Order: sequence, then C-alpha cells, then structure tokens
Amino acid sequence: MKLVTFDAGQVGYIDGETVVELDVPNTREFFGREGQVPETGRTFPLAQVRLRAPIAPKKFFHTSGNFRENEGEPRQVGWSHPMHKGIVFFQNVDAIVGPDEAVVHPEHLTSELDCEPELAIVIGRPGKFFTPEQALSHIMGYAVFNGVTARDIQRREVPSGASSFCKAIDTFAPLGPWIVTADEIPDPHNLRMELRVNGETRQGSHTSRMIVSIPELVAYHSPQGYSAGDLITTGPASGTAGGNPVSAGPYLKPGDQIEAEIEGVGVLRSPVISWQEAHGTTPGRPREPRRPAEGTK
Amino acid sequence: MKLVTFDAGQVGYIDGETVVELDVPNTREFFGREGQVPETGRTFPLAQVRLRAPIAPKKFFHTSGNFRENEGEPRQVGWSHPMHKGIVFFQNVDAIVGPDEAVVHPEHLTSELDCEPELAIVIGRPGKFFTPEQALSHIMGYAVFNGVTARDIQRREVPSGASSFCKAIDTFAPLGPWIVTADEIPDPHNLRMELRVNGETRQGSHTSRMIVSIPELVAYHSPQGYSAGDLITTGPASGTAGGNPVSAGPYLKPGDQIEAEIEGVGVLRSPVISWQEAHGTTPGRPREPRRPAEGTK
Repeated sequence: MKLVTFDAGQVGYIDGETVVELDVPNTREFFGREGQVPETGRTFPLAQVRLRAPIAPKKFFHTSGNFRENEGEPRQVGWSHPMHKGIVFFQNVDAIVGPDEAVVHPEHLTSELDCEPELAIVIGRPGKFFTPEQALSHIMGYAVFNGVTARDIQRREVPSGASSFCKAIDTFAPLGPWIVTADEIPDPHNLRMELRVNGETRQGSHTSRMIVSIPELVAYHSPQGYSAGDLITTGPASGTAGGNPVSAGPYLKPGDQIEAEIEGVGVLRSPVISWQEAHGTTPGRPREPRRPAEGTK
Repeated sequence: MKLVTFDAGQVGYIDGETVVELDVPNTREFFGREGQVPETGRTFPLAQVRLRAPIAPKKFFHTSGNFRENEGEPRQVGWSHPMHKGIVFFQNVDAIVGPDEAVVHPEHLTSELDCEPELAIVIGRPGKFFTPEQALSHIMGYAVFNGVTARDIQRREVPSGASSFCKAIDTFAPLGPWIVTADEIPDPHNLRMELRVNGETRQGSHTSRMIVSIPELVAYHSPQGYSAGDLITTGPASGTAGGNPVSAGPYLKPGDQIEAEIEGVGVLRSPVISWQEAHGTTPGRPREPRRPAEGTK
C-alpha cells in the first residue's frame, strides 16, 4: 500500500489513479492502530489532490554515515575523525516538508547547501530494548527522505559533537511522496538510490551497501524507545557535494530541482527557492551569539 | 504561576497547598493559547496529587557546554575539541520523566552514568528567524531539567558529530517539578544552580555564567522554528563526574537519590534504579551492530 497524507491532512492510499480516503486523523495513528483502519467511502482523483508530507512523527531518528563509501569521504575532505558505526541523532520534526514543497535556501546562514537521499523506515509497533530478530515486527513502512545539509555549518558543529542545526533548519527535511508499507518491499537491502539535480545524477548508491543493516540499526537504537509512527533513516548515499575533495560542490542554489529516488519506494521532488522568495523580505545579518550583559551578577 | 501536570495528565496551577485545575488538555496547548485558559472549578490538595512531567514538548532543544567553566572541562579529560558556542541538538521527547520518577540505569550499556542540571526554557509563542530582542516575547516559562548522560557512550559518539544516544536513553530526561511562568523570574541570569546526590553537593553554578545569554540562544536557534511548548535548555553546570580529571567519577548507581535545584524554579528529585528492577528481567548482552547479510546483492 502507498499511504498518503493529502489536501487538508486527510489520510488515504493510492489505488491506480485514485486516492481512497481512510477514516483516521493522521498516519501516525494509522500505525498506532497497526493499519486496522476503515475506509470513509470517499475517493479522489490522484491528479487532483495535493500530497503532503506523509507523516508528522513524534520522533525522527537521523542516521549518519552508514554506507561503505561514506567511510572514506569524511577523511578525504579533512574531517577530523572517522564515523562511529550507527550514529543517530534527532531530526527536527518541524523542518519536514512534503513532495514538491520548496526547500528554502537561507543564504544568510550558508553558502554550502547540500543534500543526501536516505531510505526512511517507519516504525509501526512501539517498543524499546529489543533485538535485531524482534526489530522486523516493528518496521511497518518505508519512505524517501532527503537530508538537506548546510555543510559550512556542519563543519563548525561536528567537532563539538553535534550535527544538528546544519540539518534542522526550516524546510531541510523533505519526506515523501508517500509511505510504502513493508509488505511491498520484500528486501529493503536491495534498492537502488539516486539523487538528481536538474535532471543530472549527482549521487547514487544501493541499500545493500549499508554498514549496519536495517534490523540491526532499529534494534541498536531501541533503548531510546519508539512510538508508533517514529521515523529512522538509514544513512545517506555517497557523492554529496560536501564529500567531493576535488570541486567542493556543486552546492544547491535557488532554482534547482532536486529528485531523490529510491527504487520501489518513490521519487521525492523538491524545488529550491531563495529565503527572500519564501519570506518576502531580506534576511537579517547573522552574528555570533553573545554572553549575558556584564552587569548581571 | 507554577504550572503542573498531574494524576491522569490534568493541567493546573499551584496555589499554596492546593492545585487549581485548568480547562485545557495539556500544557503544550496552555502555551498555544498564550495562557488564556479558564479554571474548571475543581481543586485538589497538592499533597494528594501525583505530579507528572510538566510538559510533553513537540521539540526539545538540548544545549551543550554553555557555561564558562565548561570551556575548560572537556580538554581536562582529553576531549579532542573545544565546544563551539551555542551547540544544540535534539533531546528524545520520549525519554522525559517527571518529578520523583525513576532514572533507570541501563548497566548493560554504560558504567559511567552521570547527570547535569540545566535551566530549561519553555517557548510560548511559535516563531522562526527572529532576533534576540524579539526572543523575550517567545519565552513563557522555566523548568528544571536534569540531563542524564552515559559518558562512555558519549565518548564514542562525540568524535562522529553526535551526542545523542548517550543522553536519549529511556528515562534519561527528568523534567519538573513544574513550569514557573516567566513573570515570576525577573532575571533568568541570576539563579543559583545545584546538583546533589544523596544530599551531597556535586555540581554548582550560576546562570550568570552562561557563555551565550538566553535571548541570544533562543534567537540563534530560531531558524529551526519553534512550536508552542517547545523546550530549549541552556547548558549544564560544571562539576560533572565525566569532567573530573582526577577521580573520573563518582558516577551514579542504583539507590542514588538525585536532586537538581535551580533557585526560584524548583527542586527536581529523581531516584536511580537498576534496569532489572525497572524491567523485571536481566538485560540482553549488547553487541556491535552488524552489516547486512553477505548474500544480499
């Protein structure tokens, strides 16, 4: 099943060229009920609905550097440390945007806007402290995630043990276009991944190249607990602009059209627009944050 | 006003020895309505209610190393890099526990359980991309947060640009005992902070010692966007066990009673219990996460 959120937030599934509406307030609750949800009886032509981000998760675990080719990339461009296996941090749930929704380039904050496609896993059944063998029963779907990243900000953050702000800025988390339920993906480690910008292929990999497998990853992070509908990404494909030791680019710019594709899961399209186009004003000049006034005790 | 969540999740405020119930489903919505919420007419003796975690935020920004004494600590114990100013990552919203609720020591995962008291800011009015001058109008309350941390896990994560799992394990985010609304804290940079274990003072600082001030911090991270009721912590006091170059400890152990206190905000008490006491079984032996099976393409 291709599970969608559409128009004013309704939930449905795609049947050919039709969206069949489901009687559930959101997809998080769809997973909370293990998919046991009736139809409303209403259908809509797929071409006439606006698809939204397919889920607003309670938690969004974001995986770093989980592909074999990533093992070398950070060192090529002077990162100080190799990646530890299975590194996960939390993504900003308010930065999620849906298919065809703009990624806003905050040009006052970054001049190295990059992105990386990832396979996102949707957790169905909640749980914590479980084994890789038990993990499969918690996985109920897959979606395409595009991890937009400000590489210049990331370079400042990582040595302090964070890779958060650089990936969590408003609109930096395109997700979609739908959630494919797990029954339609017989082997999630056998999917081609590709990232195109303006039709040109910039990144590619294959989910067989993960260092930590999906059930191992899901189990490894289970001491943090999962709620129904939580997301966990599985790591980016190689070929990011930030990992290119020769050209240090090309970075994204307003007007670019990004397509992140994962075989059997979908194609997620995101136009890049300028901050001014999104906000209608010129952004304020950023500056270093300051100490409390010296008058304070 | 001391705003509480109690018993089955009701919201109220403390008036002397009484809890006055408010007609709002949760404290996140209290802030969404800018505190314009009627009373239900029901009151409860404070001594007879069970206080819960005062809020279940949509997002929980967690600040690292924002106190002057922290600038040196990481280097004393061989951390590879100084902290960058205003480093923030996301805390696990499902790891929040309330006052007098147990911190569960996952002894199969860590032998260096530590904690650090922090002043948590509650964002009232949502917003993004705003200045320090505008930040004050977004701050509607304060609470005590105790950042429980597995230092041995943190040491493995930080070089890869994460400080997440080590702080996000189940029950590692005690919060409470209530939210004090901003009108009761005339100067949030003039509060004493203390951490006691079994009555003995182990950590102390003062909110005047922040490197990045509260309005600067809140504004600096505003490109990530705030929803009503989001939390942002302001950095830990010094004296953590993990920052002690001499004894590398003392670390927390089952049976310990932690008290995190911030002047004018409150005292947050957390007993430490063993994983076995919490779960009734012995934890499985942890192991390194593994690659996908070699049979996969």
